[in-house]
Amino acid sequence: MNRFIKLIVGVSMSKIAVVGATGAVGRCFVELLLDRVPASELMLCASAKSAGSLLTIKQHEFIIHDLALVDFTDVKLAFFSAGASVAKAHAERAVAAGAFVVDNSSGFRETMPLVVPEINLPSLSKPQIIANPNCVVIPLCLILHALREFQLKHVSVVSFQSVSGSGNKGLSALAAGGPSAVYQAPIAGNVIPKIDDFLDNGFTKEEMKIKTETNKILQDDCLVTATAVRVPVTRGHSIAVHVTAKQAWDLERVISLLSNKPSISLVPDTELLTPKTHVQQCPGVMVSRVRLEVDNPNGLLFWLVSDNLLKGAALNSIQIAERLGLLAEFAYE
Amino acid sequence: MNRFIKLIVGVSMSKIAVVGATGAVGRCFVELLLDRVPASELMLCASAKSAGSLLTIKQHEFIIHDLALVDFTDVKLAFFSAGASVAKAHAERAVAAGAFVVDNSSGFRETMPLVVPEINLPSLSKPQIIANPNCVVIPLCLILHALREFQLKHVSVVSFQSVSGSGNKGLSALAAGGPSAVYQAPIAGNVIPKIDDFLDNGFTKEEMKIKTETNKILQDDCLVTATAVRVPVTRGHSIAVHVTAKQAWDLERVISLLSNKPSISLVPDTELLTPKTHVQQCPGVMVSRVRLEVDNPNGLLFWLVSDNLLKGAALNSIQIAERLGLLAEFAYE
Repeated sequence: MNRFIKLIVGVSMSKIAVVGATGAVGRCFVELLLDRVPASELMLCASAKSAGSLLTIKQHEFIIHDLALVDFTDVKLAFFSAGASVAKAHAERAVAAGAFVVDNSSGFRETMPLVVPEINLPSLSKPQIIANPNCVVIPLCLILHALREFQLKHVSVVSFQSVSGSGNKGLSALAAGGPSAVYQAPIAGNVIPKIDDFLDNGFTKEEMKIKTETNKILQDDCLVTATAVRVPVTRGHSIAVHVTAKQAWDLERVISLLSNKPSISLVPDTELLTPKTHVQQCPGVMVSRVRLEVDNPNGLLFWLVSDNLLKGAALNSIQIAERLGLLAEFAYE
Repeated sequence: MNRFIKLIVGVSMSKIAVVGATGAVGRCFVELLLDRVPASELMLCASAKSAGSLLTIKQHEFIIHDLALVDFTDVKLAFFSAGASVAKAHAERAVAAGAFVVDNSSGFRETMPLVVPEINLPSLSKPQIIANPNCVVIPLCLILHALREFQLKHVSVVSFQSVSGSGNKGLSALAAGGPSAVYQAPIAGNVIPKIDDFLDNGFTKEEMKIKTETNKILQDDCLVTATAVRVPVTRGHSIAVHVTAKQAWDLERVISLLSNKPSISLVPDTELLTPKTHVQQCPGVMVSRVRLEVDNPNGLLFWLVSDNLLKGAALNSIQIAERLGLLAEFAYE
């Protein structure tokens, strides 16, 4: 009976929609939202394929709604995590019905505010779409923004991206071991220097996102260059960064800037910051191995680890909504 | 009977010693040498712990000799692959007895010729020690040397190094899955941004080797900076490289310089160059994803894969000996 009531309430009174709820990021959205609002406020949507199925998260059972049939009239806030084409097909419909949309895909990153709330929170007066940045860009920008007083000139990025960045398909491909459609090469026991499609300039779409989104968020034209690599890690992206500034770095000042900042955790080298050992220890970005380049006072290197499903995706989106005051009305009393 | 004869011959007539023969690289030395010289020319040495045991490689059975007790009088050529302390304790003794030594450790890289035979083969008139470079440095230098006409200014390296770089211990740690003494963090399902010990400047010894050895081999003072990362790959090191030249790159010329060079294989992007799929396809270095930096005509990026046990270690050492004419007298008639 209790279960039945939960389901009914979940359908009729929902004010927060999670689109793409059956995916790896979608599940994180629901988990994080349940810490903040009652389950009855949530409506979970996915493709027609999943519609009508039940999903249990944190002991709450949800029915999955068919996105194509969803009426957004009662929805005040919608988190989209279903890829660019789905976002482009449905996000504007949600906004027209009166919902603020935070979209986790790349569909609106060029045209809409691209937000890391610690850096560039906009002030919004009416429903619209806010884009959540790429999962490498968010942790990278948190650190670069903290260091901006040194005037960044060049940022060279090499990412070690976990398979959960490809969603449930990526996790399955790693578990299965052999070749898979999602990666074109076996990912178990391997590293693959290609994420998303190649462009004519030889970079992948992922690598160009890292460049253009970083410049947009930091409002800085520093040169950003990336090599994005998939690694056989379940969860947590790692990033090796080499930053050249217009002026000499002061290591003591750098350490001070990275200490006690919200969403940044400075990890001593001796603690050995790795995704497997640390990804669950901090919801923001962890930084370690901060060091000055030998023979180049303007060069700085560091190593980042961040949860690609949380700060790289669902958590950042929810923090955007929280900081814009969009979650308060739904929160537990 | 046949087996007995092989063993006796192997002991009494050996002229080529392989020191550290029970290790991952040592085994490669023996395999490669058996393609070039009769088994009877080989003497396999290791620590007292392995002495007296039998090792079967390519259907030849060898007895392992105790390095500490080996008389190098009849040895003309010795390949050492047993770490710096063993090399320092025994290599000079071998040279004094009349052997040329090619040492695979870091023990003599600063003081002795450090050789990639395609780049800087010395002319030697009497027995001495020749140092084999670090396993990341060899493939890196092959490419940088091919591109030297553009005048290198800055080389930023991020390595994805396989566990066989830590020898049999590394392979066991990956297979076992959990934490291990060799890596201080689990390597299965993880990436670890630390190879060898940390130095006071925040770099690891491995990262500093990549810098100093590259400069020494290329006889160039370009700035080399590295982040060396261990990845859960069995065999084959991958390297993401970002090179800034003193002049603008000409991509067509770069491609031409990397084509049809000995020990370099240019792999089309569409073929997706990864260690697991390609490491056995080429004994030298494979290069792919060659691309110009966007908005910086002096920036070039590429991705390398090379077998750390072959061109990164045993093969390069044997090629040094071959190119110096030191193997000819032992070769099959």
